[in-house]
Amino acid sequence: MGQSVFYLKQSDLPKQWYNIQADLPAPLYPPINPATGKPISPDDLSPIFPKGVIEQEMTQERWIDIPEPVREILKIWRPSPLVRAVNLEKALNTPAKIFYKDESLSPAGSHKPNTAVAQAYYNKIEGVKRISTETGAGQWGSALAFATNLFGLQCTVYMVRVSYEQKPYRRTLMHLWNGEVFSSPTDKTDAGRAVRAKTPDTLGSLGIAISEAVEDAAKHPDTKYSLGSVLNHVIMHQTITGLEAKLQFEMAGVEPDILIGCAGGGSNVAGFIFPFVPEKLAGKKIQFIATEPTACPTLTKGPFRYDYGDTACLTPLMKMYTLGHNFIPSGIHAGGLRYHGMSPLVSLLCNQKLIEARAYSQNPVFEAARLFAQTERVIPAPETAHAIKAVVDEAVRCRETGEEKTIGFLLSGHGHFDLYSYDKYMENALEDYEHPDEAIKKSISELPDIDYSIE
Amino acid sequence: MGQSVFYLKQSDLPKQWYNIQADLPAPLYPPINPATGKPISPDDLSPIFPKGVIEQEMTQERWIDIPEPVREILKIWRPSPLVRAVNLEKALNTPAKIFYKDESLSPAGSHKPNTAVAQAYYNKIEGVKRISTETGAGQWGSALAFATNLFGLQCTVYMVRVSYEQKPYRRTLMHLWNGEVFSSPTDKTDAGRAVRAKTPDTLGSLGIAISEAVEDAAKHPDTKYSLGSVLNHVIMHQTITGLEAKLQFEMAGVEPDILIGCAGGGSNVAGFIFPFVPEKLAGKKIQFIATEPTACPTLTKGPFRYDYGDTACLTPLMKMYTLGHNFIPSGIHAGGLRYHGMSPLVSLLCNQKLIEARAYSQNPVFEAARLFAQTERVIPAPETAHAIKAVVDEAVRCRETGEEKTIGFLLSGHGHFDLYSYDKYMENALEDYEHPDEAIKKSISELPDIDYSIE
Repeated sequence: MGQSVFYLKQSDLPKQWYNIQADLPAPLYPPINPATGKPISPDDLSPIFPKGVIEQEMTQERWIDIPEPVREILKIWRPSPLVRAVNLEKALNTPAKIFYKDESLSPAGSHKPNTAVAQAYYNKIEGVKRISTETGAGQWGSALAFATNLFGLQCTVYMVRVSYEQKPYRRTLMHLWNGEVFSSPTDKTDAGRAVRAKTPDTLGSLGIAISEAVEDAAKHPDTKYSLGSVLNHVIMHQTITGLEAKLQFEMAGVEPDILIGCAGGGSNVAGFIFPFVPEKLAGKKIQFIATEPTACPTLTKGPFRYDYGDTACLTPLMKMYTLGHNFIPSGIHAGGLRYHGMSPLVSLLCNQKLIEARAYSQNPVFEAARLFAQTERVIPAPETAHAIKAVVDEAVRCRETGEEKTIGFLLSGHGHFDLYSYDKYMENALEDYEHPDEAIKKSISELPDIDYSIE
Repeated sequence: MGQSVFYLKQSDLPKQWYNIQADLPAPLYPPINPATGKPISPDDLSPIFPKGVIEQEMTQERWIDIPEPVREILKIWRPSPLVRAVNLEKALNTPAKIFYKDESLSPAGSHKPNTAVAQAYYNKIEGVKRISTETGAGQWGSALAFATNLFGLQCTVYMVRVSYEQKPYRRTLMHLWNGEVFSSPTDKTDAGRAVRAKTPDTLGSLGIAISEAVEDAAKHPDTKYSLGSVLNHVIMHQTITGLEAKLQFEMAGVEPDILIGCAGGGSNVAGFIFPFVPEKLAGKKIQFIATEPTACPTLTKGPFRYDYGDTACLTPLMKMYTLGHNFIPSGIHAGGLRYHGMSPLVSLLCNQKLIEARAYSQNPVFEAARLFAQTERVIPAPETAHAIKAVVDEAVRCRETGEEKTIGFLLSGHGHFDLYSYDKYMENALEDYEHPDEAIKKSISELPDIDYSIE
């Protein structure tokens, strides 16, 4: 066995992010201001985002420079290694080659700091004092707290109630990095109070927590809002994973046949695969797979429609796969995948059949995660485990067909703060929840009746 | 800033362990059979250890081959990187260069799997079916469960009660790797039942848990015992960290002036510094520091005497620094440092003034840990944080004197399963416990009246 870990030098850390907006196979639908029915302008976004971020959200430039102070901080853990999962291959007795890009090595334990550092930087240079945000499982909230702390900014995190209870130690991380954390819905915002009045026992949702964080930013002039996924600039920041991986697949002397990532808001899978999209558009045979939970089957059961990003309808409307902004998924352990919508960019590429989607329920996902944890270095986060389930399926298919495919996936984070979920799995106490079609139909029926046609 | 992470290739993974017994500056006192008062023979150990391990415990050979199947498993995460803590240096405004050898990257999150894999291998090839062991914070128990699972062995872990309660997720790890875990003292062994009868509210101790695990092995012919620190073979397996670090300091173009590790049973600091000892014996100026808690000040307050390794007096007598086998430290969060004794090899080198020892209480230790977590990639384990406290002290001293020393330390593990301790620290709820001298005097007075003179 030769080398199975592929490291880049720190000087190989990409100097530019890749912006897929320059290479889309079809035009991207613009976000719509619900008040006017027209595409939003940069000014519409300025109450909640700094200018630097708004520019990045809208730019059509293919390559965007990564500021040096951002690169310096990313070097605390980047470039991340690409690892061949030799022991998993053996355990599966597959002729497939399996590679994972290990994003679990960041201080917060996931890919999330890749964008958190950049966003904190752009807020800092524009004099913002505090950043508000939402978080599901806490991967994003802890990443932002880590980043804001390095830049001397304050950080307020609205954490979805079910995860706030399930994952107390992600709260500890935020405290360690000087962030404040509240269980959402809170009584601190109009949006939160409204939900609590109507459904006091709610598990919370990312949609609700987004409403709270946006309202907080909109009401405080020294505060801006930050989102950990979905938006174009977030995805652009995450392309650092795919850009590094491209170099590393070359070092390994292989070309990936299949690339896989899990999809909550979409930045994880998008950051990993987008740098490979131009090759596919140019005719190269490469398969992209986004995986999600059957409890929140946005890509597999949602329509491609305009919808709000949040429950209280404070955000612009975005054209995306969506289960409806009133959709509340069950309290599955992959808190980061409990989002009703999906990145408009990922949605467009799914709609164009460039990315395929698969949905899995909890037990098969944790079975794959356990196998990975028993054979490889990392105990994967429940979100990541959705990607691993697809990897295992594809590797088993290769065993059956004899194909020696090269499969790459983004190991988006470790599950060290999700071990309660593993306990439940090992106690056979996890539900294989599939959200009922009737309930999905109902929340979809509440979608706003808005469309926009691109000439 | 140039490269600040130093990776070795997998082919650079050491092919041999270093055995310091070949290079000792003074003879090592042999372990004594308490029944005969004479040095133990290999046969004395055969009820509880496999032959391969006994040979390694006693050999005087300088270099011992690492079996290929062990190297193959170590490659899941090794060689581990040596990292320059650039951001910590900046935060401390020190001219010192600080390097850490990152052992937090193993599947169990610490240096412990380095020996767990080797020990599981030697048991496997001799047909052992099950391994019993003790664990403090659970670092060792989880490491052994990981390793035994890969070799298809069963694993039974006696986990010190206070840690069993404080660190539930290290139990989850052991379950994930198919180990069984009991809160020690249990009612499954004579040793455990005796302690429970006498002191039902005991916090437990490593000494008690060792008694239980040894008894379990001695009573079951298909079962052997395994120890995660203290003994010569364990320390030899851990020299892989220091051997790799030597190569990496060369890559970095520096020569370490100070090397630091924390000391519970001693394998952590010993594995890191022993490969550098011959240079020091040859006259090179290099300082070795072992750090420990004031709640369990073995090296700083214990005498260098023969004592039992466990509470029930089942082990051979070892000449070491010891607080007495009846010593029960307070329930500090660095569970891995709650051991009354110390590796005879480390003890000898301390006694020879080659290693110096320092003791710290909890709050300054966690303060150093928080600073590290806010500036570098890793949230350190409470044990590791004892080393970091000394690193920070030395770096601050360099700031004051202007010396540009190169300081290296073993980052022995991450603290992801110790965040409860960080919570307590941030709530100002940690005690700065110093074990009372009177109590130490009492437990020392109960040392066995045995000595052995080496001609």
